[in-house]
Amino acid sequence: MLCCASLRIFNEPLIVLGGSCAQDHEGVGGFQEWPQVESSKPYCKYAARPPCAAVIPLHVEKAVRLSTYGRPGATYLDLPATLLIQSINKENIYKVASCPPPPLIFPDQRLVQQAANLLMRARKPLLIIGKGAAYGRAENEVRNMVYLTGIPFLPMPMGKGVVPDTNERCVSSARTFALQQSDVILLLGARLNWMLHFGKPPRFQPDVKMIQVDLCPEELHNSVPSAIAIQSDISTTVDSLVTILKERKWFVEENSPWWKDLLAKSNKNRAIIQKMSMDVSVPLNYYAVFKHIQDIIPSDCIICSEGANTMDIGKTILLNNQPRHRLDAATFGTMGVGLGFAIAAALYCKKNAPTKRVICVEGDSAFGFSGMEIETMFRYKLPIIVIIINNNGIYGGLDNETFRQIQASGEPTQVIPPNSLTSETHYEKMLEMFGRTGHFCTTVQDIQRALRICLQVNDSPSMINIMINPQAERKQQKFDWLTESKL
Amino acid sequence: MLCCASLRIFNEPLIVLGGSCAQDHEGVGGFQEWPQVESSKPYCKYAARPPCAAVIPLHVEKAVRLSTYGRPGATYLDLPATLLIQSINKENIYKVASCPPPPLIFPDQRLVQQAANLLMRARKPLLIIGKGAAYGRAENEVRNMVYLTGIPFLPMPMGKGVVPDTNERCVSSARTFALQQSDVILLLGARLNWMLHFGKPPRFQPDVKMIQVDLCPEELHNSVPSAIAIQSDISTTVDSLVTILKERKWFVEENSPWWKDLLAKSNKNRAIIQKMSMDVSVPLNYYAVFKHIQDIIPSDCIICSEGANTMDIGKTILLNNQPRHRLDAATFGTMGVGLGFAIAAALYCKKNAPTKRVICVEGDSAFGFSGMEIETMFRYKLPIIVIIINNNGIYGGLDNETFRQIQASGEPTQVIPPNSLTSETHYEKMLEMFGRTGHFCTTVQDIQRALRICLQVNDSPSMINIMINPQAERKQQKFDWLTESKL
Amino acid sequence: MLCCASLRIFNEPLIVLGGSCAQDHEGVGGFQEWPQVESSKPYCKYAARPPCAAVIPLHVEKAVRLSTYGRPGATYLDLPATLLIQSINKENIYKVASCPPPPLIFPDQRLVQQAANLLMRARKPLLIIGKGAAYGRAENEVRNMVYLTGIPFLPMPMGKGVVPDTNERCVSSARTFALQQSDVILLLGARLNWMLHFGKPPRFQPDVKMIQVDLCPEELHNSVPSAIAIQSDISTTVDSLVTILKERKWFVEENSPWWKDLLAKSNKNRAIIQKMSMDVSVPLNYYAVFKHIQDIIPSDCIICSEGANTMDIGKTILLNNQPRHRLDAATFGTMGVGLGFAIAAALYCKKNAPTKRVICVEGDSAFGFSGMEIETMFRYKLPIIVIIINNNGIYGGLDNETFRQIQASGEPTQVIPPNSLTSETHYEKMLEMFGRTGHFCTTVQDIQRALRICLQVNDSPSMINIMINPQAERKQQKFDWLTESKL
Amino acid sequence: MLCCASLRIFNEPLIVLGGSCAQDHEGVGGFQEWPQVESSKPYCKYAARPPCAAVIPLHVEKAVRLSTYGRPGATYLDLPATLLIQSINKENIYKVASCPPPPLIFPDQRLVQQAANLLMRARKPLLIIGKGAAYGRAENEVRNMVYLTGIPFLPMPMGKGVVPDTNERCVSSARTFALQQSDVILLLGARLNWMLHFGKPPRFQPDVKMIQVDLCPEELHNSVPSAIAIQSDISTTVDSLVTILKERKWFVEENSPWWKDLLAKSNKNRAIIQKMSMDVSVPLNYYAVFKHIQDIIPSDCIICSEGANTMDIGKTILLNNQPRHRLDAATFGTMGVGLGFAIAAALYCKKNAPTKRVICVEGDSAFGFSGMEIETMFRYKLPIIVIIINNNGIYGGLDNETFRQIQASGEPTQVIPPNSLTSETHYEKMLEMFGRTGHFCTTVQDIQRALRICLQVNDSPSMINIMINPQAERKQQKFDWLTESKL
Repeated sequence: MLCCASLRIFNEPLIVLGGSCAQDHEGVGGFQEWPQVESSKPYCKYAARPPCAAVIPLHVEKAVRLSTYGRPGATYLDLPATLLIQSINKENIYKVASCPPPPLIFPDQRLVQQAANLLMRARKPLLIIGKGAAYGRAENEVRNMVYLTGIPFLPMPMGKGVVPDTNERCVSSARTFALQQSDVILLLGARLNWMLHFGKPPRFQPDVKMIQVDLCPEELHNSVPSAIAIQSDISTTVDSLVTILKERKWFVEENSPWWKDLLAKSNKNRAIIQKMSMDVSVPLNYYAVFKHIQDIIPSDCIICSEGANTMDIGKTILLNNQPRHRLDAATFGTMGVGLGFAIAAALYCKKNAPTKRVICVEGDSAFGFSGMEIETMFRYKLPIIVIIINNNGIYGGLDNETFRQIQASGEPTQVIPPNSLTSETHYEKMLEMFGRTGHFCTTVQDIQRALRICLQVNDSPSMINIMINPQAERKQQKFDWLTESKL
Repeated sequence: MLCCASLRIFNEPLIVLGGSCAQDHEGVGGFQEWPQVESSKPYCKYAARPPCAAVIPLHVEKAVRLSTYGRPGATYLDLPATLLIQSINKENIYKVASCPPPPLIFPDQRLVQQAANLLMRARKPLLIIGKGAAYGRAENEVRNMVYLTGIPFLPMPMGKGVVPDTNERCVSSARTFALQQSDVILLLGARLNWMLHFGKPPRFQPDVKMIQVDLCPEELHNSVPSAIAIQSDISTTVDSLVTILKERKWFVEENSPWWKDLLAKSNKNRAIIQKMSMDVSVPLNYYAVFKHIQDIIPSDCIICSEGANTMDIGKTILLNNQPRHRLDAATFGTMGVGLGFAIAAALYCKKNAPTKRVICVEGDSAFGFSGMEIETMFRYKLPIIVIIINNNGIYGGLDNETFRQIQASGEPTQVIPPNSLTSETHYEKMLEMFGRTGHFCTTVQDIQRALRICLQVNDSPSMINIMINPQAERKQQKFDWLTESKL
Repeated sequence: MLCCASLRIFNEPLIVLGGSCAQDHEGVGGFQEWPQVESSKPYCKYAARPPCAAVIPLHVEKAVRLSTYGRPGATYLDLPATLLIQSINKENIYKVASCPPPPLIFPDQRLVQQAANLLMRARKPLLIIGKGAAYGRAENEVRNMVYLTGIPFLPMPMGKGVVPDTNERCVSSARTFALQQSDVILLLGARLNWMLHFGKPPRFQPDVKMIQVDLCPEELHNSVPSAIAIQSDISTTVDSLVTILKERKWFVEENSPWWKDLLAKSNKNRAIIQKMSMDVSVPLNYYAVFKHIQDIIPSDCIICSEGANTMDIGKTILLNNQPRHRLDAATFGTMGVGLGFAIAAALYCKKNAPTKRVICVEGDSAFGFSGMEIETMFRYKLPIIVIIINNNGIYGGLDNETFRQIQASGEPTQVIPPNSLTSETHYEKMLEMFGRTGHFCTTVQDIQRALRICLQVNDSPSMINIMINPQAERKQQKFDWLTESKL
Repeated sequence: MLCCASLRIFNEPLIVLGGSCAQDHEGVGGFQEWPQVESSKPYCKYAARPPCAAVIPLHVEKAVRLSTYGRPGATYLDLPATLLIQSINKENIYKVASCPPPPLIFPDQRLVQQAANLLMRARKPLLIIGKGAAYGRAENEVRNMVYLTGIPFLPMPMGKGVVPDTNERCVSSARTFALQQSDVILLLGARLNWMLHFGKPPRFQPDVKMIQVDLCPEELHNSVPSAIAIQSDISTTVDSLVTILKERKWFVEENSPWWKDLLAKSNKNRAIIQKMSMDVSVPLNYYAVFKHIQDIIPSDCIICSEGANTMDIGKTILLNNQPRHRLDAATFGTMGVGLGFAIAAALYCKKNAPTKRVICVEGDSAFGFSGMEIETMFRYKLPIIVIIINNNGIYGGLDNETFRQIQASGEPTQVIPPNSLTSETHYEKMLEMFGRTGHFCTTVQDIQRALRICLQVNDSPSMINIMINPQAERKQQKFDWLTESKL
């Protein structure tokens, strides 16, 4: 977790160093004897066991390099006990130099020209900012593009902050409308996978034209053919593209039908959300909770998040204004990663940005996977604010009263639906393990007070457990998250 | 965890059923698309994806059968979304019958005869009872052997209770002496791996003769050649062996030098332990804690345990009188399994033995891996008693006072050794998440009181957090746990 | 090939020793750098790279042991260049003893009793002899069973010769009838896989009762549940079973309806085959060819065979009177193995049975996979007789004349069906590479003459290329070889 | 083989389509049941089993695309019998468009500028042309560079012909000197693996500066750090680089010390080789053989080659003037690929370049791996000329007379060294299998005559078996091929 997060936030190399049993115990049942290199391979860009201590540097350099060059990924080095206790002469150590930062790749200018032409002919252009733009540190170029062309954009979850969420051309509030209507999409470092409905109708126009920019050639044209596919770093291509578009003075005007429609749809959805977020009746709904958190947290904080509705709704209301400041379950959607990500982010901030705060927003079910990491946060005195959005289960449990009645009446597991977990669990009590006090909130005022207190704490984690309406829902969605299987 | 435990306790089949992404989303980035069958293979006896709903029964039967026949193990069935929503006509469903219980295999009687001869010629015979004897349900036969021949025995951790730990011929208190001195060892379903120092000197006599009985032919002669190696169920071989030995009236007499030496060594060690366990000065030591727990817990309870010293010392004082009533980290030594094992055991008891209690004895570091499972215990109303033996870290942390001083003085992670975790963590406060109260104990009286209260609770987990001396140690050991690597 | 054959024939250990690149070249592109251990694992019972020269004996012993204990299989040891040039002191070499022969496992006598009862109640008992009986060296016991009980039997291809094919109770000529009619089948070391139509109707009675004996517990009840399943060596179980049956004087009488029906069916089929084999018109048919080969070759020769019809029909006419004297493509059905098997067999004979001959009977297509091994045979002066049954293709090519016309007329690959290969290829000319002369035969007289000459050669391979009718067919079969897929 | 060759020659997609057993036979022992997708993965860029017939096009498109985009490689699609017989409605077939040719990537111009600067400062610049330049179809750009700058160059085996071998700046004849002396090396699509001695001394200057251009970022800096590392297509970078160098009028003058030294060394070596190639005494040596082959074969033929000395020496004398016209064992060095490569090349020529000839130059040992493919050549009427350079073994066998004496005297395998195979094998006799006559040559006149005849044949393979002196050697080499392991 720690490692993955460090890779994701700062594009730093990710090497897992694993100890393994003494090599002469292999074959006769050594302690935890296991083919670790082989088992790591499906998950790693490089996995190796240095054959002797002298050549460890060779493998460390290679692991660092492969982790950061090309599409970034994890690497694994296996260090058997035999190696860890080996003595060697200093002069026999394999000499290596640190590898320089990863190479930048540049686009085919003819394709960039074509892309510019296509965008200029578009009636409904749209920019999708994927996490590749964040990994590739392309924020300056992409921001420049939005500022100079006014192109409406949608960030993917981990692409949030490449351009600030508060930029007026961000059309997250009209996401479905934008995807469904656009005739030309500039896709920067995002994959047309389940998160983008495989690029297919009815989520997209059947004849939408994709301009795809990706570091990884094997991603080009995946699922649907792109009209223009450019293997390149995001920064170099966008830089070239903006130069052309700026010269040609291309701009999506405020009074263009496309922008007016997007704005109207956006405003309509914002009004609905605004209305829901202003409904502070107890038990609270998601929108009211997130709106009042967003009002208080620092605008430059790092947000880690996981859960179902908690992650999905939170992403639309908790804003990022800097790139690589949101860490969530992302493409693979694995639960249990949130607290590890928060710890990694906090360790990084402690060293590099001591005043920056890490906020970890967790669904109650997601928290259950690795909640014990609170202890790790205490051990390292990390001032992470853990916020639990508690709806008694996954996609909403039973309400507290029903829960209590069932629990009292006998065999709960036969009546309670499997997505209902425990009711009104006071997770905040975990802080008392360490002599601290957590916060249990049921009202907006509770949340505001608790957050203000937590922001004062700078030597240990805090926890805010917010009880919401277990039946609280998302705003109605036009489409299921996944394009349904057609087999 | 749940599954592994069910396999270990009751030799019931272990099938993990995994959902996977819709098959027509494969190749284009489906949600959590991953080659799950392939990834499971190194860990499983059988891993398959049924090609269509109609043949699911074929694969379920095979998974059940392979999990329990031969050496037991885990199996995995992959059920993509495509299959889970498939409709088929009832008559097209593949018909299967449940497989019968696993086959029994019988020994070569000539080898049993030789084994009897070898034992009768032994001056210092010893019986080692491995978990294979427990899995193989050989308790009647092995008990019979001990009763009828008086052979001194050592149980392996998961072999405890096959013969009651309280049997007078149990020489666990003289373990090292027994292993080191014995000239003929009857090894029942135990491997000569790191837990038995690979069967080699100086832990064993260079010319010790092993009589090895194992279900699995590939285990025979592993690490060292056995004098007699029998591929067989434990029960059938021991039954035959006892018949011969009984007929020949072989018995390890109380006044034999071997037994007298063992008893003397055993008594000496017991006296040391007894003395340590009677030292109830605060902070407490391991022996005092375990002795007073042992005095109170029911003799038929299931004990789950993990940790370093907690597991190792606990195993010598917490007794098992029934087979398959101890679940610990065992051969592979993985931490984080304890609470999952306890949940599995409690779910089994709830259905099959409602009055039997499950006691989960955890080191504080081990508890940190999966402590959040307390929530699962509440959800299923499982009356598990979780006991944490808290020494502020791994193999002992700093004492509380030093800890506090360091924490106060600034940057703890630079001063505190890596095996020291947080200090005096009040894990028992976790129960307040659910409106219950845990127990924090520093004295023997605290422990006694807390245990008695917990034994009254039958609808939810309880927790006892016992603070011991962080410098508390094991009785001095003659050998390191592992034979050192010789490379 | 060599290795696999040695495993199959003599149940000797199979270890593949592979060289690999120097370990310090790993990671930087060493010559043929590849994870060989990992790549070998799916195909091996044990695959390892010794960590240093000193412990090579440990891994050799383990590889030998695992190859022969339990179900036999291949093993792989990886020896990097680094290890091959390492010097060590003699006293540091890890000492190992050779492992004894594999253990014998014995059956549950209650099950043997039940098996005897079931057989005695059977109206139509049948014995199927699998290659497990050959590997397990159970020929004395199985022969004894056939002699003492008269039970009709069917050998699987690699089980041929456990009981001589010439035994009158061998009902290979009525195979389909026997399988389809039997009510109780004693299955010795054979799997109910595709070769036995998965044990299912219409190839078997729906209520047929299987008595299954197998070394490997995971094989029991596979595909269909066995009425009685015994994990045991074949020899020990059959020995016990025969003792009971003999005592009870159970015998399948010559005048029993079952035997009479089998004999009638058998005789009818034999008559058809006899008729076909007596049709010596040119171009020859399979039956004529095999019959006249069988008449001349020594009765104790080892027969290696591969091909489609060549292997299938050959197996019914070329007889084995000794166990482990037939090597063919067997369960996995891989083509290209024949010449390698023959070389292994010949090397074994050279050392252990210098007068025994190896006959390698190949389809022309199968020969094409590894025909160059003729050179190896010359190199080692192995007097193998390679017989090619040449039908211009797979399951029969075009006849020579049509072939010639098409070849002459232009683009052959567009007209010639894919299973037609070259026409009338004179494979026997390959012997002229070594200054010898091969034999091209079109008539029975040609074959007889050629075989007699070849049997005189004892210092080099010979080759007989027999041109048969490309449209020559098998006797009509009642069932396709495979139970058709039902998905 | 066929596939790999097609990938190598023409950068065409490589998809292996494999049949597999019916899916409902999986788990019960289907014919050749095996996890083929999983087993293929280590060797493939993409391996998948389409879940139903309807989505086969999705996986075919992906396999084609992944095979050719980025670093090219093999892909595998698994088609179980179940799928092959499935019927679907036409409208349900997944629609895909063919993917366009792979993307071009462009270099960082700042790095190209630096590269130009570095080259211009070099005293001893050298260009190494790897197979990446051939795969990337960069011949125009690279030729242009050589013509315009006069930079001395070395082709790697599969990079031969990108610039014609006959170009005067080709310094293959002074390979070791060039590598050892150069101070700045421009490395185009070649890896610093064993073939380039890992880029290390003593094969290279300790402070040599590498300018590395590679499509694959993970290759950059591998083994040794490059002074300048550019992730790019070869063509785009070289194009930019030449523009700069041309503008600056950089040229390696004929009278520069570097060129004079290279030329002197080259001429000296050429003289030695010339002298050896003019020594036509019988038995012939390698140089005489290759020189006289080179004199006759068409300059645009495709040369396939494998063997030890045959491949290594042949590569220096048999010239390529067109890119992608040499196919040999290359990086992985696997023997047995030659005839398959030749068949693929010939099939391609048959369709696309009917007058182009394919010459397959084989060592006798290499030919033994897959010599039977001669039959395939006949089947498809492919006019390949197979030339065997026959030295009775690997790196030279015994001479014929010694061989004969040993063979006659008894047990050959005990006396003949393992790298000696059979003596004076008349491989050319294999053609008589098909009614043709091969050529056995011992003199230069034999070779000339045979080649001229073979070049007239255009409807079937020919074979020339050239007997050379078994003790014929390479010109003395300054270094072993491999930097020795230092462990």
